This record gives sequence, structure tokens and C-alpha cells, in this order.
Amino acid sequence: MNSPLEKSLPLAAKFYLELPRPSLRDNTADLDRVLRQLKTLTGLESIQVPFDQISAWVRRLRQADYRVTAALALTLPGARLFDLEPGDTTATAFGLAVDLGTTRIACQIWDLQRREMVFETDFDNPQTRFGPDILTRIQMAEKPEGLRTLQEAVVQALNRVLRDFTGSRSLRPENLLALTLAGNTTMVHLFLGLDPYALRREPYIPVVNTLAPLSARELGLALHPLGPVYIFPNVGSYLGGDILAGIQFSGLHRQDALSLLVDVGTNAEVVLGNSQWLLGCAGAAGPALEGGVAAMGMTAGPGAIEKIRIDPGTLEVRRQQIGTGPPAGICGSGLIDLVAEMFTAGLIDIRGKFNRKVKTERWVEVDGQPAFLLAPAQETQTGRPIIFTQVDLDILLRSKAAMYTILTTLVQSVGHRLDEVENFFVAGAFGNHIDPEKAITIGLLPDLPRERFRPLGNTSLKGAAALLLDQGRQEEIRRIAGAITYLEMNVNQDFMNRFSAARFLPHTDLSLFPSVPRPL
Amino acid sequence: MNSPLEKSLPLAAKFYLELPRPSLRDNTADLDRVLRQLKTLTGLESIQVPFDQISAWVRRLRQADYRVTAALALTLPGARLFDLEPGDTTATAFGLAVDLGTTRIACQIWDLQRREMVFETDFDNPQTRFGPDILTRIQMAEKPEGLRTLQEAVVQALNRVLRDFTGSRSLRPENLLALTLAGNTTMVHLFLGLDPYALRREPYIPVVNTLAPLSARELGLALHPLGPVYIFPNVGSYLGGDILAGIQFSGLHRQDALSLLVDVGTNAEVVLGNSQWLLGCAGAAGPALEGGVAAMGMTAGPGAIEKIRIDPGTLEVRRQQIGTGPPAGICGSGLIDLVAEMFTAGLIDIRGKFNRKVKTERWVEVDGQPAFLLAPAQETQTGRPIIFTQVDLDILLRSKAAMYTILTTLVQSVGHRLDEVENFFVAGAFGNHIDPEKAITIGLLPDLPRERFRPLGNTSLKGAAALLLDQGRQEEIRRIAGAITYLEMNVNQDFMNRFSAARFLPHTDLSLFPSVPRPL
Repeated sequence: MNSPLEKSLPLAAKFYLELPRPSLRDNTADLDRVLRQLKTLTGLESIQVPFDQISAWVRRLRQADYRVTAALALTLPGARLFDLEPGDTTATAFGLAVDLGTTRIACQIWDLQRREMVFETDFDNPQTRFGPDILTRIQMAEKPEGLRTLQEAVVQALNRVLRDFTGSRSLRPENLLALTLAGNTTMVHLFLGLDPYALRREPYIPVVNTLAPLSARELGLALHPLGPVYIFPNVGSYLGGDILAGIQFSGLHRQDALSLLVDVGTNAEVVLGNSQWLLGCAGAAGPALEGGVAAMGMTAGPGAIEKIRIDPGTLEVRRQQIGTGPPAGICGSGLIDLVAEMFTAGLIDIRGKFNRKVKTERWVEVDGQPAFLLAPAQETQTGRPIIFTQVDLDILLRSKAAMYTILTTLVQSVGHRLDEVENFFVAGAFGNHIDPEKAITIGLLPDLPRERFRPLGNTSLKGAAALLLDQGRQEEIRRIAGAITYLEMNVNQDFMNRFSAARFLPHTDLSLFPSVPRPL
Repeated sequence: MNSPLEKSLPLAAKFYLELPRPSLRDNTADLDRVLRQLKTLTGLESIQVPFDQISAWVRRLRQADYRVTAALALTLPGARLFDLEPGDTTATAFGLAVDLGTTRIACQIWDLQRREMVFETDFDNPQTRFGPDILTRIQMAEKPEGLRTLQEAVVQALNRVLRDFTGSRSLRPENLLALTLAGNTTMVHLFLGLDPYALRREPYIPVVNTLAPLSARELGLALHPLGPVYIFPNVGSYLGGDILAGIQFSGLHRQDALSLLVDVGTNAEVVLGNSQWLLGCAGAAGPALEGGVAAMGMTAGPGAIEKIRIDPGTLEVRRQQIGTGPPAGICGSGLIDLVAEMFTAGLIDIRGKFNRKVKTERWVEVDGQPAFLLAPAQETQTGRPIIFTQVDLDILLRSKAAMYTILTTLVQSVGHRLDEVENFFVAGAFGNHIDPEKAITIGLLPDLPRERFRPLGNTSLKGAAALLLDQGRQEEIRRIAGAITYLEMNVNQDFMNRFSAARFLPHTDLSLFPSVPRPL
């Protein structure tokens, strides 16, 4: 890192120092000599040093004849020296960015020196073994050892990723300098071993929203033990660091025009605003949309049906699944495709009921309930048919209605209409895989000019990675966290009326969806 | 502590908080709620929190129904929350100020709430068991376990003081919030367990000069384990935190007129300057002046002869010793008195030789050397006579000559004369006990108008205590440390010529000492 001031610095940066050797004319103390040079290089006014390392580092400094590499944690409020290695080791400097989701964990390892992503992976949150959703995990955390067990499950999963990486490249844990992590408030509490008890009980109080930067050893992470761990702050129990990472990454907070970010994970989180103000809210809309609720639903992954086309004339069904094998279930984007196509083909009516007057051999009955056969048993991975029931449809419509109602309520709360939203950022696996056209068809997303939609993918992960490479974003995140107002969704009669109207396909008020083709 | 902004805050301050209870309208996270209130009260922008305490503190906060006392370490660069106790505990808040001398350790315990000193003590540095002076202790620190043994000796001695205090008042260690410590660079290295190897080898490099504030548990001190420990920074190997504490306490750095601070401990440290600049130097002048070198010398304490008058006519000797018992030896101020009085009475000539032509029964011979009998065996504590030999006199004169030469050299190095020094601050036990008139008589101090001398006592201890009560001084100390230029005393022919001239009584150039009475 030769001219650090010309570009943004990563959250943990290495500096090779060739220090002037001590002399009678320059008899600055050894450690002060290191810090003096670092301050000159970085413009920092103050750099902290862990007391218990000073003796060893100064010994190393003298042995290395004042030619050393300093590792700096550029965390707010103050930078911290966290290693001093003999010679020039600036070439090995990596960091891990983590999106800690309730269901999935996604990671990227970055080369901080070359600013290149060198490894990416995602896997089920191992806490799902103990409880599929947030509430069951909070309950588990109240049992003896429950919190610790949940915490260790995630720490060990991340450590496996880290150890696999260092092992495969013959690196030492000390070469992994930093970790950034964004997640919802509950996941972050569990990861940090903080009691989540009050998160889901009125008035919904986190233990802490904004945490000082930690060292890896405080959490038992297999990085450099003194390397910085940055946890994105929460806004509240229902708006987590993942959404802050999303705002920061999307740039919503720098827009002049009215903008909206929706992040559909296990929960739906929505932020409305611009460079002047930010208003956020959250609601239960997600599980059905993620594919986690339908009887044959599954999260996006190999075997998941993600695209469906139904020929309105022949009612022929074409499926596309992730990976090369036979289908195993249907994921969120597949479900939305399915409902949109069935609606367009007349197989579902405007009230959201199966229309069995339209004849096809795919209508079946399961436990006396009507269902739509998506894949017969002989074509599936499991040997069981993949079906879509009226119950699944009802759940999905409630979710999409909740989502649309949350969007409407939020926008109306500040005297705007949805069609005034100029930038519609769509985050989450949802935003990555979904076809906005289909989402509009079922009335999940508003009927805006299509170019206003900006699918961004996993903004929680991307935001975490962006911070890893540019510590300057910390200050911006701090400002965003301070600027967001949380809107508590008041589930009153107005809300319920809007919700009921939004359960129709696409909506009772068709004037809101002028571009959606009327069903046959 | 009700209106903290109206007065200076101590280094560790307690604040009783009655926080608004969480509600749907104010659902700030628990810890953030505490910090928000503290920031409002103090105006601080950032307050750090030790991660491993958060869970316990938030549990306590909830149990105490949001009525808690927060303990804040107001250390630079950032404040730190270090305790959260149920209810109002602001009444118990104490701190320890320490002057860590090579020979003696002096301590004061202050009630930080009432701003009253509640306990004071001083005792021999227990490291003297292992080595009387700095060099022997540095040698010991190089042996296995040597450094740890030296460190533990001081830590345990301080812990005894702390435990006696808490024991006698039924307090807990947690009621002792903070510790400030000033000492010379070597003593501070040994106290912190930092390798002193390079301190006394050219080019004389400390491990570290400016340390970030520590927590008591990092040093094993019997205070609140997370309470702040502030160590005054060193300027270099030969100018320590004790002199910084002295400058800060004396206010030398705020004077418009040319001012000088001399601190005679085991070493002599001198700082010259004003509000614009500061120039410091140090030299070996002290031991003899402290009474540690003469055959019958002792440090100031019970039994030490501290004042002597000799009637110029009758040569009758009157002594005054510390305490009520018979004399045991002679301390620094007693030695200076003795030489001044003997000189005035004609018993010592201008060359610093005993003048046995003046007859008195006090002339004796010891091992064939001439000596002056100060107290016969039957009058002393030890049963041995207290005598003063020509060798003792020679050593004292070398010390006083070194001191005067250092003062002259320092002042001349910036183109001034000693008589232009408007404020002459005299620090150290020396400054407390010595009679400036006598010190001038022997040519140890320059012959200035007497009102320019400001004896300040133990400015290292007083400076440490002042900081304990007013954290704002940290910033001033940081500025002083950054402003001092260290003058390496170049022992060249010029210096040696000056030194030789200064070995006379009071000086070969009598015009420098116009007010000193010529001997009989």
C-alpha cells in the first residue's frame, strides 16, 4: 500500500514501513516511532495500541532492524494498530464479508490489497437445525446454554469457511485481517451472544444497536485474533444492519428523487426516502415469498423450480429449475411465476381462487383439497409429485398483500403515492431471481415504469464487502443509522381494508395496475 | 454529579441516570439509551463500551428499572463506559495518584466526588531491595523473571495501599475508580513490564513514550478492574512523566516570562521555557543532593537531620531532625545547610576544602581522613557518630557544580543568562525542605531575587492528583509532551570548564553571587 491517501483504505490495511533507525538526534521511543510514521502516512491523529502486545512488537521491530509491516484497523471512532510483522508482508491481506440471514449465510473473501473477490460461498444458517425461524431461536436462547449453542453454530460455520480458505492457500489465520457482517437484529444478537429476549416482546428493545468495533478473538473467529470485526448497526428490533448495508450499497440516501428499497428476506424490510430523510418499516411478508412456506416450497438452490411458463392456449406447462437434476420443489421466484402464469391463463381468478372451470389434467385433489400438479412423481427428485394447493396460494396471496399494503402504507404516511417513487431498489435473493413483470402481474410490486426497478441482489452482502474495502463508509453508515425514522406499522382498520383489497389479483382497484394484462 | 458541564470532570466520573423506560414511541436499544443520556450529559460524541460486559450490564439495567449509575473513564482519545451499577452509587468514587520515584513512592487517595484528599502515604520503592539505583535495576530486568519481579514489587506495594484503604472503610475495590501515575522513564518501564534494555544504552530509546490509557486489570491493580489507569507520558529516556506532571502543575508552559523548573530527585531534570517553547535536559546531579550518597546520608524521614545552624562566633552547632527521636543521619537539605553554614563560619574554604586552621573540637579523623563531627555516638539513634568527611563534601560539591552547570548550559544554549529567569520553580522533596538561601550560599541555585523562587513540593504527585480531578489536563499534557525539545548535554571542554568553576564555593566568579556573604 504505497500511496494510501490517493484511494480509499480498506477496514484493515497493511503498511510497509522503513523507519529511520534511532540516533541521538532522533531518539523518539520505538513504538512512538512506528506511530509517527503511520500518522504521517494516513493523516490519522490517534492510533491505539493494545498494551499487552507492546513488548513483543518492539522486540520484533528491533530484530527486524526497523523494517516492518504494520496492520491498522481503520475502525471508528479510532484507528488501532493490531500487528507489526518483520519485513514487507503487505501482499497477504484478506477479509471476509458476511450476510448473516435467518435462513442462509452468504460470504465473500476479498483480497484487500488487490481489491479482488477471491472466494464466495453460501450455505444454510446452521441454527436452522435448532429452529427454522426467528421466534423458535429466541425461545431456544432462553434455555440454559441455548444462546451459546446458537452463537457457536454460526461462529463455527464461519470458521470452517475461513479455515478452508487459509488451508487451501497455505495462509495463516493472521493473513485474514478483518470481517464485516450484516444481518437482521435477531441474528446479530445471537451471533454476538446477546440476550434476544426483549426483541420480540413489546416494546421490542434490542440490547444494543451500535456496537464499537470488536476484535476477532472476542468472538472466537479464526481470523487474526486482533483483527477488526465490524458489525453493521441495527436501527431497531425490526430493522437490522442488513437493511443499513442495503441503503448504503444502493445509494438511496444520496438520491434527490423519492426512492424506495425493499429487501425481502425472511422478513420484508422497506425504506423510503432520499438524501433529506429516511423512513423505514418492516413486516411479516417474506417467508411465503422466499418459498419457505408452501408445502412443496424450498429456498432457491439446486432442484428448485425457479421459472414457469403456461401457454394460455394449450395450458402446456414449461418449467425451469436450478441445476441440472430433476426438480425437488419450488422456490420463491418460481411460486410468483406460477401464480402470475396461472392467473394470466385463467386458472386462478381475480379473487385468488382456483378456477377449475378451465379444464386441464393438472387439477388434482390432495386430502380432499383442490391442487395444481406441477410435476408428477416420476419426474421429481424425491419420487413425490410437486403440487400447489389452494392453501399454498392463500398463503402466498396474504404475503403479497402484506407486502403491497406495507409499501402503500409507508408511502402514504408521508403524503406520497407509490407511482411517485422514482427509484425502486429491490434487494435480496428475491430481487435477484424474481421477474419484476410477474411480480407486478400478481400485485406484489406496484405497476411502475419497469426502468424504475433496480434489482441489486444481496445488498446486505454487497454492502458488507463494500465496507471491507472502504472504511470511509463507516461514517456514512453511522449517519444513515442516525437518520432513519422507524415507522411502527399500525395494524388498524385502514391497514386491514388495504390488506383485503390487495389480496385480489392483482388488486381490487385495477386502475392501480394499468399495464397488467386482463386474464382470459 | 449533577451539572458536570459546569465544572471540570475527574478522570473517572460517575453519573446517576434516570432513563426514560422503553416504549413503542422510544424503542432505542438498551445500551444506546444509556449512551444517549451520557452523551447529552457530557457533550461527548463517542463512548466506548467493553463488549464482554454488555450482556451483564443490560440485564442489570433492566433489573434496576433504568435507574443506574454509570462510571465513565474520561480518557483520551475516547471516553469509555466501565461500569453500570443499580441505583445511585455516585457517593463512592475514589482515585489514587502516585509519584513513582526510584527511591520513594508517594501516594494520595482522593474522593473524586467531594474533591478531597482522604489519605496520603509514602514509602520506599520496594525495588530498592533488588537494586538501589536505576542501573542495577535495569541489569536485574535482563535476568529471567527479573522484570516481572520488579514490576510485581511495585504493583503489590500499591495494592497494599489500596486494600488497606478499602478495608478500613468497608469499600470494595470497585469503589476505587482510577489511578494516575507519574514517574521517571525507567520506573514507568519497570512498572509496566516493558523492557528497559535500550534506555541506558546509546542512543537511549524508550519502548514507548505515550501510552493509551490502560485498565486496572491489565496491570493487576486492586482498583475497579476496568477503571482507567493513566500513565504520564515520557519525553525520552532521561525526561520522564514526572517532569511533565511538574510542568503541568507549575504552569511553566503558560508563563509569558522566561521560566525554569528544576526537579531534583535521584536525577536532576530541568525545563526552561515559557508559553512559546520548552527545552528540557537531565543530568546526574541528584543522589548527593538527596542525601543518598554521603556516608551518613539518608533520605528525608524520621531521624534525618534536616536543618543545621553554626554560630560563626562560637562555632556552636545546632541541629534539627525530623520526628522526635535522636538523629540517625543527615538528609539532602541538612547537607546543604551544613555546607553553607560551615562555609559561612570559615570551616570550609572557597575551594571546598576543610579549613582546619579554624579550631573546633568537632574536627576528627576517620580512617586517616579529616571529618567534621555532627553528632557524637551517644547522641544518635544508631550509637555511632554522625560525621561528615572531606569525601562527602567533594561528592556534594560535584553534585552542586553539576546542577549549576546544567542550569547555566541550558539557559545559555538559548542565548539567555540565569538572571533573566523570572520564575524559578523548585520541585521535588528537595524543593520542599531546602532553604533557598543556603542553596544559593553554596552556589547550587543561582543568586536571584528570592521572590523568584517557587518551591512547589512533590510536583509529580501533585500533578498526578490534579489530573485525577480534572481530565481536561490530559490534552494539555499531550501538548506539553509534544512541545518539549530535549537538549542532550554535550559534556565538552566548555561544559567541563564551567563545571570546574562551579565546584568552588559559591563559584570562582563571585560576581555571579553578589548577595552571598563572604566567609569570615
